[in-house]
Amino acid sequence: MRWWSDGVVWLVLERVVVDVTVLRLSHRPGRDQRLSTHVCLIARAFGADRVVFPSLDQGVEETVGDVVDRFGGGFEVVEDPKWRSLIRDWEGVSVHLTMYGERFVDVVETVQGCGSLLVIVGAGKVPGEVYDWVDFNVAVGNQPHSEAASLGVWLMRVLGEEVLFEDREGAKVRVEPTARGKRITRLD
Amino acid sequence: MRWWSDGVVWLVLERVVVDVTVLRLSHRPGRDQRLSTHVCLIARAFGADRVVFPSLDQGVEETVGDVVDRFGGGFEVVEDPKWRSLIRDWEGVSVHLTMYGERFVDVVETVQGCGSLLVIVGAGKVPGEVYDWVDFNVAVGNQPHSEAASLGVWLMRVLGEEVLFEDREGAKVRVEPTARGKRITRLD
Repeated sequence: MRWWSDGVVWLVLERVVVDVTVLRLSHRPGRDQRLSTHVCLIARAFGADRVVFPSLDQGVEETVGDVVDRFGGGFEVVEDPKWRSLIRDWEGVSVHLTMYGERFVDVVETVQGCGSLLVIVGAGKVPGEVYDWVDFNVAVGNQPHSEAASLGVWLMRVLGEEVLFEDREGAKVRVEPTARGKRITRLD
Repeated sequence: MRWWSDGVVWLVLERVVVDVTVLRLSHRPGRDQRLSTHVCLIARAFGADRVVFPSLDQGVEETVGDVVDRFGGGFEVVEDPKWRSLIRDWEGVSVHLTMYGERFVDVVETVQGCGSLLVIVGAGKVPGEVYDWVDFNVAVGNQPHSEAASLGVWLMRVLGEEVLFEDREGAKVRVEPTARGKRITRLD
């Protein structure tokens, strides 16, 4: 959307969060493999650009790689052992999803203007210093549930619902919404 | 909310879905234990009343029982081997969450007046006849992701966000939303 006013051109971005990184902390290889795979697929489907693991799990990387290969997009799974400085030096807004945080509805509008968003989700216990390093500790409810649902709800509220049905660049297949059965279109 | 008009009393329920059952299909004991536990905790936190398993996993039941014991509410995990007739004889509206279904935003308003809602989520492959038996096959996006995120998003859209922060009857503890650290109040 563009506005002209007194000879000045204002460029207004409709989607003001332009890049989303998810940091998956406390992943225990083997034990957390399936849930971390779900976290990656949720991150991708709801519009994040990458998931960072302090230590990469090959099983997770392979499953996610297969989905990206078929369904497209530039989504990636990345290893970065220096996750502490990733949080502390983050240029943009960092959010830690935890049931102890502020109500998500109170934070979502502030975050929507941030440009570059870091979202941290833990598997097991998250080190206490993370609560201090981030800009916001955010709760999708203060009942215990799951980082998988929190991540999905949070990204949907920040990025909108449309991304969930968008075609991704380079996709080989498209699933067509339908009332009964399965309709899959080959794109290549 | 009550309205009086020409001597007639109209009772308008603000929350028109009054009872929610989640049916977890294709659960494989051991392999799916952690994800099914997450599914149960999501169901509870987002306002469902029970999760039905065709075959109960004791590990799931115990973990969920511990949460209900501390955080309250009447939520339960139930075994029902006759899951086929549960779907076919359902009095109310039945919804199967699948990436192949209709866009969730197109179905949510129809479902909100149903009174009694059955939500079906699969772990592995769901039998083909389920697609025919339910009233709606619903997709929270047509990208592959996770039944955990789909369930959370769907319940939140049907039941609203407030339930995520409501105290449950008989709770022993309450988590208070806070910007830093953890604030837990004992209620007993």
